[in-house]
Amino acid sequence: MKAAVYYGPNKVEIDDVAEPEPAPGTVKLKVGFNGICGTDLHEYYAGPIFVPTSPHPLTGQQLPLTIGHEFSGTITAVGDGVTGWAEGDRVAVEPIYKCGDCAPCRAGNYNVCQHIGFHGLMSDGGMAEYTVVPTSMLHKLPNSVSLELGALVEPMSVAYHAATLGDVSGGDTAMVFGAGPIGIGLWFALRGKGVDDIFVVEPSATRRAAIESLGATTLDPTAIDVPTFIADHTRGNGADAVFDAAGVTPAVTTALACVASRKPMVSVAIYEKPLETPLLNLVMNESRIQGSLCYTGSDFESVISLMADGAYDTTGWVATIPIDDVVDEGFEALHAGKKMKVLVDPNGES
Amino acid sequence: MKAAVYYGPNKVEIDDVAEPEPAPGTVKLKVGFNGICGTDLHEYYAGPIFVPTSPHPLTGQQLPLTIGHEFSGTITAVGDGVTGWAEGDRVAVEPIYKCGDCAPCRAGNYNVCQHIGFHGLMSDGGMAEYTVVPTSMLHKLPNSVSLELGALVEPMSVAYHAATLGDVSGGDTAMVFGAGPIGIGLWFALRGKGVDDIFVVEPSATRRAAIESLGATTLDPTAIDVPTFIADHTRGNGADAVFDAAGVTPAVTTALACVASRKPMVSVAIYEKPLETPLLNLVMNESRIQGSLCYTGSDFESVISLMADGAYDTTGWVATIPIDDVVDEGFEALHAGKKMKVLVDPNGES
Ligand SMILES: [Zn+2]
Ligand SMILES: [Zn+2]
Ligand SMILES: [Zn+2]
Ligand SMILES: [Zn+2]
Repeated sequence: MKAAVYYGPNKVEIDDVAEPEPAPGTVKLKVGFNGICGTDLHEYYAGPIFVPTSPHPLTGQQLPLTIGHEFSGTITAVGDGVTGWAEGDRVAVEPIYKCGDCAPCRAGNYNVCQHIGFHGLMSDGGMAEYTVVPTSMLHKLPNSVSLELGALVEPMSVAYHAATLGDVSGGDTAMVFGAGPIGIGLWFALRGKGVDDIFVVEPSATRRAAIESLGATTLDPTAIDVPTFIADHTRGNGADAVFDAAGVTPAVTTALACVASRKPMVSVAIYEKPLETPLLNLVMNESRIQGSLCYTGSDFESVISLMADGAYDTTGWVATIPIDDVVDEGFEALHAGKKMKVLVDPNGES
Repeated sequence: MKAAVYYGPNKVEIDDVAEPEPAPGTVKLKVGFNGICGTDLHEYYAGPIFVPTSPHPLTGQQLPLTIGHEFSGTITAVGDGVTGWAEGDRVAVEPIYKCGDCAPCRAGNYNVCQHIGFHGLMSDGGMAEYTVVPTSMLHKLPNSVSLELGALVEPMSVAYHAATLGDVSGGDTAMVFGAGPIGIGLWFALRGKGVDDIFVVEPSATRRAAIESLGATTLDPTAIDVPTFIADHTRGNGADAVFDAAGVTPAVTTALACVASRKPMVSVAIYEKPLETPLLNLVMNESRIQGSLCYTGSDFESVISLMADGAYDTTGWVATIPIDDVVDEGFEALHAGKKMKVLVDPNGES
């Protein structure tokens, strides 16, 4: 079968590899679509970071391996001892391997497991015609949710998890900094939680146009003074939650100038280095910066449920490409900013 | 009467001013002791910052005015309409003027009132033989709490409020960065909350010695790798709460490398500028930075109650001086690091 195999920096090849067969407790999936995300780009341009160079303690695998951790698929075979899942079931995959025994795992927060691993980074993943995953990773897709949307459940769950940490509800004012895929996911998640008063702050006109076409209200921080606008809009109180999906100093500085007293800025960005952060703002109004990492199963279920209700829309920000084009039309197009989100189609489904 | 009057930068004089008399709803206090804090030093060396240069909306006052916001006293006269307070009552003063009407005030969080003022910064304060305050600022001192301790209730409440935001309890591991007066107050507050496993991180040998003599365990960050020590001590989990009472980059960086997943670093420092902050640490373990400002009445009551139980000790870190020496033995000695905490005695009580 075809698979996108990661060998190291700047080397991903479409190889012909053996089809995997399901071990006990696992299922074999025909992959529907597999998204490329920022983590994959980091591996491609600056890796290996997460991909192990010696056998991984939870998976035993190391590079070269098939990448891809954001995917949907259809079960084509079940391993011994598997119950509750059958050939033909359509699923989204929650790609976390957890130890189950560390303090966070025991508290149910396996997204911060001290020994976390990912299917598609620490083991052969979803950028292939087939992949095999343990049943613990499966979330059933209702018929109304397409395999394209199914491949977006993972990144949308990253955003949904962050939205939940923002602790907002109907009537609140929220702000999203950065209108990339996670920023878009935050907007959908907040709407799904009943928050209508949302401002997306994004300096790129292209990205503003994309999220506006979904129905969002945007602010251009190069054109207006955002904290003054928000203060006026909220009668001086500030926003009930602000979300940093940009990861740069101007976004963090502006976000902390907008957040209301005793409210959070949720950080859901990969900060490449320490940023100059106005911590005095946190002290003067007892606000906080709350980190957000990945998701747990309940985030997957919430996103799938919202998708079934028609709450997500791929128009204008999601492109689908065949697996053979993964380097040129995937990694390089994303790196150059020519595309926002790319789904790889390994089986010619689209 | 004698009063320490603030005129502007580098100008505090001991003047002979008129004794204030109580208006309706207020009481006249003979001041016991009045502490000098970092805010006062900022006003002296770099002010006016909080002291108004035009009439303050809540108090009508502006400079020159009598400074001092950390004080205890004994009621010598009560204004019209005052009930529940009598001549001879010994009190600690919670020096906040609040608007009562902004969103934080209405939520009970008047420590982040949008129009907050302080007695002794926005009005004539406690560094004088007498001062007049509204009864809403009074907290009764039991006989077992001295007027010296009474003057420390305010800064100890700043620390107690921060300790509460740390959300720790018996069995938890806590860390305090910085062993100045607020760091010492955090140590007392955490002990008062039943936390026994506390590490105070402080590079100054003098300050380590002072807090060790109270019974604290300290770590010298210039001698050991603090995050490695804490990881070993907590079986890899990290500290349940870390407190930054230092306000400098090395403290923040080390603190965020020590905090456990989904736990807080509480910031209770005056950050003079934005600091390079490793926000990625917050994301990778979903920890948070929580700002802490001042206190509300419940913090005062908790501290007074702990003081009545003998939980606070002034040995080795608190000095008392007569009001005439306030510049040389107060501001300048503190600024030079020759003293840690100074209580001014305007009435020759000590
Ligand atoms: Zn991803
Ligand atoms: Zn674990
Ligand atoms: Zn003070
Ligand atoms: Zn107020």
